[in-house]
Amino acid sequence: MTEYDHIPAVHSEVSKGGPATIDLNCDMGESFGAWTMGDDASVLAHVSSVNIACGFHAGDPDTMRRTVDLAARANVAIGAHVSLPDLQGFGRREMRVSTDETYAMTLYQIGALAGFAHAAGARLHHVKPHGALYNMAARDAALADAIARAVRDFDPALILVGLAGSELPRAGERARLAVAHEAFADRRYESDGSLTPRREAGAVIEHIDAAVAQALAIVRDGIVTTRQGGTLALHADTICVHGDRTDAALFARRLREALDAAKVLITPLAMKPSPPSPAMGERVG
Amino acid sequence: MTEYDHIPAVHSEVSKGGPATIDLNCDMGESFGAWTMGDDASVLAHVSSVNIACGFHAGDPDTMRRTVDLAARANVAIGAHVSLPDLQGFGRREMRVSTDETYAMTLYQIGALAGFAHAAGARLHHVKPHGALYNMAARDAALADAIARAVRDFDPALILVGLAGSELPRAGERARLAVAHEAFADRRYESDGSLTPRREAGAVIEHIDAAVAQALAIVRDGIVTTRQGGTLALHADTICVHGDRTDAALFARRLREALDAAKVLITPLAMKPSPPSPAMGERVG
Amino acid sequence: MTEYDHIPAVHSEVSKGGPATIDLNCDMGESFGAWTMGDDASVLAHVSSVNIACGFHAGDPDTMRRTVDLAARANVAIGAHVSLPDLQGFGRREMRVSTDETYAMTLYQIGALAGFAHAAGARLHHVKPHGALYNMAARDAALADAIARAVRDFDPALILVGLAGSELPRAGERARLAVAHEAFADRRYESDGSLTPRREAGAVIEHIDAAVAQALAIVRDGIVTTRQGGTLALHADTICVHGDRTDAALFARRLREALDAAKVLITPLAMKPSPPSPAMGERVG
Amino acid sequence: MTEYDHIPAVHSEVSKGGPATIDLNCDMGESFGAWTMGDDASVLAHVSSVNIACGFHAGDPDTMRRTVDLAARANVAIGAHVSLPDLQGFGRREMRVSTDETYAMTLYQIGALAGFAHAAGARLHHVKPHGALYNMAARDAALADAIARAVRDFDPALILVGLAGSELPRAGERARLAVAHEAFADRRYESDGSLTPRREAGAVIEHIDAAVAQALAIVRDGIVTTRQGGTLALHADTICVHGDRTDAALFARRLREALDAAKVLITPLAMKPSPPSPAMGERVG
Repeated sequence: MTEYDHIPAVHSEVSKGGPATIDLNCDMGESFGAWTMGDDASVLAHVSSVNIACGFHAGDPDTMRRTVDLAARANVAIGAHVSLPDLQGFGRREMRVSTDETYAMTLYQIGALAGFAHAAGARLHHVKPHGALYNMAARDAALADAIARAVRDFDPALILVGLAGSELPRAGERARLAVAHEAFADRRYESDGSLTPRREAGAVIEHIDAAVAQALAIVRDGIVTTRQGGTLALHADTICVHGDRTDAALFARRLREALDAAKVLITPLAMKPSPPSPAMGERVG
Repeated sequence: MTEYDHIPAVHSEVSKGGPATIDLNCDMGESFGAWTMGDDASVLAHVSSVNIACGFHAGDPDTMRRTVDLAARANVAIGAHVSLPDLQGFGRREMRVSTDETYAMTLYQIGALAGFAHAAGARLHHVKPHGALYNMAARDAALADAIARAVRDFDPALILVGLAGSELPRAGERARLAVAHEAFADRRYESDGSLTPRREAGAVIEHIDAAVAQALAIVRDGIVTTRQGGTLALHADTICVHGDRTDAALFARRLREALDAAKVLITPLAMKPSPPSPAMGERVG
Repeated sequence: MTEYDHIPAVHSEVSKGGPATIDLNCDMGESFGAWTMGDDASVLAHVSSVNIACGFHAGDPDTMRRTVDLAARANVAIGAHVSLPDLQGFGRREMRVSTDETYAMTLYQIGALAGFAHAAGARLHHVKPHGALYNMAARDAALADAIARAVRDFDPALILVGLAGSELPRAGERARLAVAHEAFADRRYESDGSLTPRREAGAVIEHIDAAVAQALAIVRDGIVTTRQGGTLALHADTICVHGDRTDAALFARRLREALDAAKVLITPLAMKPSPPSPAMGERVG
Repeated sequence: MTEYDHIPAVHSEVSKGGPATIDLNCDMGESFGAWTMGDDASVLAHVSSVNIACGFHAGDPDTMRRTVDLAARANVAIGAHVSLPDLQGFGRREMRVSTDETYAMTLYQIGALAGFAHAAGARLHHVKPHGALYNMAARDAALADAIARAVRDFDPALILVGLAGSELPRAGERARLAVAHEAFADRRYESDGSLTPRREAGAVIEHIDAAVAQALAIVRDGIVTTRQGGTLALHADTICVHGDRTDAALFARRLREALDAAKVLITPLAMKPSPPSPAMGERVG
């Protein structure tokens, strides 16, 4: 029995009716105060969705406003990139948080970002945890459920984005949310479908050609070669383009060109039809 | 010419058709993590509106969630108590912030709190700046305009609460918001209508009877006696009950009883009829 | 074979020549800005050592200054209570920090507190990690080594305080520091010598008589009864009096009285004779 | 009467016996967590002193440790660059802090940095406020006194660096500290000796040749041309090279070459002979 057999292919609720479409997403708005990170404007031209930092790992309020405005003008789908409260560690250090804390910090950040989206005449489209919270939510069903509940309580039409085949999309399904399985062009995979930790050598696929090739294999063939050398079945609804690569804009362009050449349509994830939900300005009760 | 003449009586847009009604508001949710402040549950029984800290001067996300739930169950009007980013100084230290920073930090905090209100089946009703931001917005028209724009861009039906007769209600009117003029039962007034700074002796009226008497004079007669001994015309739509007094619950109860005895109806500020606004779940464009 | 046999009695380098002495220590200075915690002045009268928060889990600079001044006037031994950077979680949430981060955050906090001690005409005497960092350092030798190196690099005469029989005192010995094994009067023990986690029922011994009895058993007999009902050999150089109990001052007084009645001398841990160390004002090189 | 006459030439206590020497200082260690700022290693080769961020406007503990190690190996004089607590505003937003808060935050940061210097086998040499605190201390004598007291209480041999001719050096002299008057190569001066605020056009002298010329005029001739076009007498003990210029390393090299060509010796400020001060490890009382 091969690795291939261990991981059943997952089928996403937001599947858009064929293998010929994919969402390209990028993390954005990761500057803070006087410090800048990434080249958001350049990357933006090549992706269909963005995940914007909400102040907990990066993104002061003014950066959030400017990034949301940029994304709204570019007409890409806007997501909240929610994080553990750890500016110093850029949200990459796991913390032992309770499910109550996780629910509340997720709802807080979604609300904050949605306000900027609303003020820009746009609308929040998806939620994706960042860094350590992303990894914790991939493994820990209770934590994943807390995140999914926060997303649903804010707006049941939002899409929950998480590591392909992990606990987070499963929690989203339990909460009756649309979910998106995410894969990475430039991160190495372990044989269990998890990402090779960043502290390991080779965790990041630096070479653009190799990363583009991995993305194409995932999108077209639904497979990825693991660090251990095996082949893993991997269904993805969205591919992440890391914005903190120094060559992020070039990488995004090359990836888009390769997908275009392969006749894959790059398009945002489709939201569920909206249930009748309370208007922002409507009185309840 | 007396002080009385200097300050023209102000007429509020949210005036509720006669002198016989008033809103009683209280600041709430000012705990943070392991630290508690105030006795929110006790005060809540005696007020019609609450202003809930949004994480910048107090109020971690889990405290916000619990406070919003408490307020929603008590059926009081829920407001965002927005602040400068200064946990250590409890938002009481003035900071030289730009109008862009002020707009963004206000919108961020409103969005965060509104998310909790929405999840609790309630709705955000008003916005009131806290501490140093409150005082700065009372004096500085440009800062006040930035706050008013953030409120309007989030939801034009929200009421903007500020120091009676100050720049903030004026900015709210320029932004076509409903505004509420706030007066204080237990803070001393200067002859120009500003509050005696907390660092001055006598700034806080410690004695409950004296504070209740000041509230009654404001609500029934529209006047207040200043620190200088003069009489100042002061129209108020809402009276603040400080939640951080050690006797806050007793004070709130006594104030409510005195207003009841004076046949003054305690009731939340009336929101404007909602304009057709984008639903939380509605796609724009 | 009983639990008793599993844990060899530990012998501390700072043993003070007989079972008839013990240090009583208390955590202090855990207020932050407008929020107060504990009744430091009352507890201070009953202990021989204090551990003062350094700004990472509690203790803004002005609180640190006032607490250090209070401790210096009371002539108790002053320690740095170093923590993970987590105000919101009061330093009680474990974080995956690297050994480099741990070394640097420990040295930072020690230096900050030592400055206040120096300005107060006192001197730093010991270092004790707080909360989650304390627990992590009890289990994780590499993390414990990073803390011990920071203490030694600041001043090799400082005493390193950690959970009795755990990795932290062992790391201190590897760094040739004087170490102190700490036991708790009011925390329940597991059969492996670790503390019952706070989230478990019965983790804190609420009843003062029971806590005093546990302290006496540890100090006089070197044993403690575990949650599982067994008896554990436990050598302690210092007993912690929790300052965040609502009855902390009464508890400290009762504990002191019981130790007095048992002819146990309450006295600070003895520092090693100081090596010739660079003066604060001396130029190196 | 010209501007020249209004400002009496100031004579520094740390004057090193002739116009032919100057200290070149640079702000350093202004990265934070995942965000980097400046090119410290390149600039370091060209300066005699560095001011290292202490965690309040920039500089997490691990960045501080690495920067101090770098500076210690380069054998430059190490100073604490103390700031208001404002990461988001990079310490550039004025805050209304009390003198007690100012004293405590200054002492805290000095202690924290001195710990790293001590661990690196080096010694703290000077203290310079950053950003808004620098500007406030140039104008406000009470605030300047609070800073000077913190420096003196930590180590009376430390040099206090402040804006040339301003309140801060005066406060240092009142506290019997050695003081250094600082001038800027690339900042425009107002006719009253203050710096043109950064928000004004032309506040920063972008062109390297013009900035080098201004530095030479200050060092050799003791004069500077103001924004208003007048000539101002300006004695300087140290010239600041901004590390956040994109061309900071080139600028520092060009400035050093110009000073070398002018036979000006670049050398750190001389500390006072150390009074007998308590050793880091010595018990007081």
